Amino acid sequence: MPGVPPTRFVFLGPEGTFAEQALRAVPAAARGTRTPAASVPDALDAVRAGEADAALVPLENSVGGAVGVTMDELAAGDPLMIIREVVLPVNFVLATRADADAPAAAGALRTVAAHPQAAAQCRGWLRAHAPAATVVEALSNAAAAAAAANQEVDAAVCAPLGLRRYRLRALAEQIADRADAQTRFVLVGRPAPPPPPSGDDVTTVAVRLGRDRVGGLLGVLTELAVRGISLTRIESRPTGDGLGSYVFLVDCAGHVAEPPLGEALMGLRRVCFDVRFLGSYPRHRLAARADRPHTPAGLAEVDFADAAAWLAALRAGRPG
Amino acid sequence: MPGVPPTRFVFLGPEGTFAEQALRAVPAAARGTRTPAASVPDALDAVRAGEADAALVPLENSVGGAVGVTMDELAAGDPLMIIREVVLPVNFVLATRADADAPAAAGALRTVAAHPQAAAQCRGWLRAHAPAATVVEALSNAAAAAAAANQEVDAAVCAPLGLRRYRLRALAEQIADRADAQTRFVLVGRPAPPPPPSGDDVTTVAVRLGRDRVGGLLGVLTELAVRGISLTRIESRPTGDGLGSYVFLVDCAGHVAEPPLGEALMGLRRVCFDVRFLGSYPRHRLAARADRPHTPAGLAEVDFADAAAWLAALRAGRPG
Amino acid sequence: MPGVPPTRFVFLGPEGTFAEQALRAVPAAARGTRTPAASVPDALDAVRAGEADAALVPLENSVGGAVGVTMDELAAGDPLMIIREVVLPVNFVLATRADADAPAAAGALRTVAAHPQAAAQCRGWLRAHAPAATVVEALSNAAAAAAAANQEVDAAVCAPLGLRRYRLRALAEQIADRADAQTRFVLVGRPAPPPPPSGDDVTTVAVRLGRDRVGGLLGVLTELAVRGISLTRIESRPTGDGLGSYVFLVDCAGHVAEPPLGEALMGLRRVCFDVRFLGSYPRHRLAARADRPHTPAGLAEVDFADAAAWLAALRAGRPG
Amino acid sequence: MPGVPPTRFVFLGPEGTFAEQALRAVPAAARGTRTPAASVPDALDAVRAGEADAALVPLENSVGGAVGVTMDELAAGDPLMIIREVVLPVNFVLATRADADAPAAAGALRTVAAHPQAAAQCRGWLRAHAPAATVVEALSNAAAAAAAANQEVDAAVCAPLGLRRYRLRALAEQIADRADAQTRFVLVGRPAPPPPPSGDDVTTVAVRLGRDRVGGLLGVLTELAVRGISLTRIESRPTGDGLGSYVFLVDCAGHVAEPPLGEALMGLRRVCFDVRFLGSYPRHRLAARADRPHTPAGLAEVDFADAAAWLAALRAGRPG
Repeated sequence: MPGVPPTRFVFLGPEGTFAEQALRAVPAAARGTRTPAASVPDALDAVRAGEADAALVPLENSVGGAVGVTMDELAAGDPLMIIREVVLPVNFVLATRADADAPAAAGALRTVAAHPQAAAQCRGWLRAHAPAATVVEALSNAAAAAAAANQEVDAAVCAPLGLRRYRLRALAEQIADRADAQTRFVLVGRPAPPPPPSGDDVTTVAVRLGRDRVGGLLGVLTELAVRGISLTRIESRPTGDGLGSYVFLVDCAGHVAEPPLGEALMGLRRVCFDVRFLGSYPRHRLAARADRPHTPAGLAEVDFADAAAWLAALRAGRPG
Repeated sequence: MPGVPPTRFVFLGPEGTFAEQALRAVPAAARGTRTPAASVPDALDAVRAGEADAALVPLENSVGGAVGVTMDELAAGDPLMIIREVVLPVNFVLATRADADAPAAAGALRTVAAHPQAAAQCRGWLRAHAPAATVVEALSNAAAAAAAANQEVDAAVCAPLGLRRYRLRALAEQIADRADAQTRFVLVGRPAPPPPPSGDDVTTVAVRLGRDRVGGLLGVLTELAVRGISLTRIESRPTGDGLGSYVFLVDCAGHVAEPPLGEALMGLRRVCFDVRFLGSYPRHRLAARADRPHTPAGLAEVDFADAAAWLAALRAGRPG
Repeated sequence: MPGVPPTRFVFLGPEGTFAEQALRAVPAAARGTRTPAASVPDALDAVRAGEADAALVPLENSVGGAVGVTMDELAAGDPLMIIREVVLPVNFVLATRADADAPAAAGALRTVAAHPQAAAQCRGWLRAHAPAATVVEALSNAAAAAAAANQEVDAAVCAPLGLRRYRLRALAEQIADRADAQTRFVLVGRPAPPPPPSGDDVTTVAVRLGRDRVGGLLGVLTELAVRGISLTRIESRPTGDGLGSYVFLVDCAGHVAEPPLGEALMGLRRVCFDVRFLGSYPRHRLAARADRPHTPAGLAEVDFADAAAWLAALRAGRPG
Repeated sequence: MPGVPPTRFVFLGPEGTFAEQALRAVPAAARGTRTPAASVPDALDAVRAGEADAALVPLENSVGGAVGVTMDELAAGDPLMIIREVVLPVNFVLATRADADAPAAAGALRTVAAHPQAAAQCRGWLRAHAPAATVVEALSNAAAAAAAANQEVDAAVCAPLGLRRYRLRALAEQIADRADAQTRFVLVGRPAPPPPPSGDDVTTVAVRLGRDRVGGLLGVLTELAVRGISLTRIESRPTGDGLGSYVFLVDCAGHVAEPPLGEALMGLRRVCFDVRFLGSYPRHRLAARADRPHTPAGLAEVDFADAAAWLAALRAGRPG
């Protein structure tokens, strides 16, 4: 129901992963129910079926590999809309048991459990600081933490949230090799009017290029550029609709309620085989980031308003 | 006064030139007054001053050389608007006196009066059919006809209208070397609401590119192309406003009241230093021409209407 | 050593996964050594260190989630080059033990082991045909097959290659929900001259857009479009080099040795902050696909040769 | 004969006009023969026939109206090439007889002879300073001066060169209404290797867009923009080749011998129906003008050289 804030949340489980940590960053979710789902499709289907109000799933990340699934679910199937994004810095810790006989330093570790991609992200650090350790693969960051808690391994690579949940302590923090790695999650609901413009919003669309329409991807980017819309992310995904057909997931700066982005969306609608609007929502900025895109001369909202007034005068026979 | 059809007309004189012939093709002018003006600026100033309702002047032509003057007058100075265009085929006749002792054939001519550019346009024909004739320059086609009537020369290259006015007869017709040459005249009035869309209109704008705005001429053409607007003519003119500043006179297919052209004009307004709207008016087609430009898929008016409805639904939370 | 075919191969392990199946499709690999690696970085580092001649890793896939890792490794770190691509249809089987007391039909299964993304890809099929089964997550398709072989679960979702390796039999074949799903692997070696043009090649580049260079992504696509180069895939990846910096992995149709692509690459070199060439190699087409992109008029190789000859004539004073 | 400087010159007559003044600015012409021609086609035909080595004709001007003729002659017919441009400030003088009883001030004039376009260019000045004078049309600036010398009129608007030739004195100088008006003449010869690059050259081409080729004018501008080539002038001219066919006369910054312009010309050759190269020659700058166009980052000649070296390395298997 539009206007009613969501109270029942699902997230990509299991508990203790980054997705739960991201959901806790959403104020409404702190007061609502939070249920883990076994997979991204399960989480989104719960929303589609009305069993949950919103789902927190990863969209773009360097950990977990679920991006493709989320993108395909959003681009096809029953429509959903992104309400909000949550960006988390990738912040792995090396966790071991808190009791006295647990290993006291990384150099002493013989076995470390880790999700394969977490292991990949911390590979350089582990080589340098835990050279004697063998990496044991785990199905999730939470499963790795559980393995450390159960004494199956000496330590685990996991999310900070895993420390408290599995009563572990950190041997080292921020062990990812790239300091600026992030995971971007989205909170997804059923179609509804988007939140009002915040002044710094993201709009996500899924654009399908057919064979018999003009322009191709160059045409898509031109529609955006002509209205001064910055493209901040683009991914191509194959579709199942036959040869030569792609869907592009595109993030733009701006909000559907604003004239520049509105006009650009109408342009995409005209030149693309299909455009699916996936939501306008406030950009989530980590503290260290403040790179708001620059608006080229003549392409600010005020310029769109001026141009509309000028055209109205022309049509009335009052060229200025 | 808007809505009142013009009754007092001026045209680029003298009488008996193509401009008068063009003016006679305008129905209202057949019933109104028709006064020759000494120059294009004089004709347009008569309209600006309210001494005439409309002026018929050449805009684009292969005869007479007045194009630059007309373009500069429209692009700068007090605003005027094009109400209508009249395209005449360039149709020169070789005229001589109608009395019995006048030359009977082109081959016998020793002197032919002609405006320099008329002479240039008929040069091949004159070489082939009047090889013995010396061309004597005249200040206008009408002056050439007058010289033939006064027996100053054996014959004249002039407009068909000159035959009757100067009581001449045609030794030969359609003697221009290029069969498809045309002259395009415009009927210019004071700013007023444009005539309603006819389904096949031309819109003329004067676009000025500054140094501190985005895009340049490529940006101008992109604004048009993105809305499917065909550019049918473009001329660059230097302006007097300093270095690196040009004004482009651009003819587009479409009408200011239609969404595609309206949106394109707003785009030009945003990215150009200045855009002066010079009128939307029905395209004048000679019988033999019917090359209405093709609208690319997705860029017809119906596509603009569909896109606007879709955007309204998106903003209301009903993505389709 | 250039010219010497590779004989020592690594692949993303463990054994029995799709990567091993893809490597077996490479003729030279059938005669060489094939060693599994624990991760994509491990596989590529073995090539960089000279311990292997070539590595077979997934680049673009709907299974396994390793794309990001492969792209980041190719786009940064010590240079490597793609020698060849191998595209496999995603062809999951539902496998159970071959002995007499194993389940005889999907409907009777209570537990099915699957890699999380394999489970996601076959979710619809499993719901319809094995409604009673609980999915048990496994670390890889091979691990799932092993679990079925060890009687830990009733059955496994795995690659066809897993059947023989783990002495399983198929309860059902081709159980992926989307019939056209594919996984694209690449064979990667150290920098060397690319294989000669085959007439239908792919060229992969990693393009980095800086803040202080012209054009952005629209500029990149324009450089390609102007030379008639089709873009067949594009992915954006954040880089670690600061704000506003992205790397785009782009697949183009064409070969570096051909003039159109060569000229386009030079164009990218000029307008981008950085371009890393990642190889030109024959397109791998599955039997059912034959959608070779159409070359626009004027942009075939013969047109490039004609234009080069014309320019040489101009410079010599022989305009044609 | 290539390499032999021209010695026999023709110019658009009659003597005493701006064209003769422009020709005198060409050093070689000061030592050679200088013959007036009756028209632009006559001047160019003399070169085509070998009767003259070079012709000085107006290309772009605000006086004289010959631009269209020159452009059409260069764009069609037997090929010619522009060797040099000469830009003259439009510098009209008001000339009267030098004897004692001639009018002493503009305010006293009753009749002033002027070419129609010279009259148009000085209209404001004449209204303000010679309000009592009637303008009598003359066929050229030289004819106007002759009329003043013959006492047919009180004074003439003419070029400064007319003063000495007709023994007149200036009542006023620089009487054109726009201070920055210029006339641009070109020196045209038979096809030959262009003069070497000067570092600040103009290249002129005539581009014909057909119906069955890609891109249109937007495509032409894109080919230039992608190589960083500035377009400094563009004019469209109808052709005689049927419907929807235009020829565009385009001036670009750069020289055919330089890689950026060479590559752009090859691009035009590929996408246009026809491209006629009309010469590369040093830009003629008046003292007061120094607006050399800025080269965007990455598009200087050194960037083209760097990109070519990089491509050669790629093809040899040495990606950098």
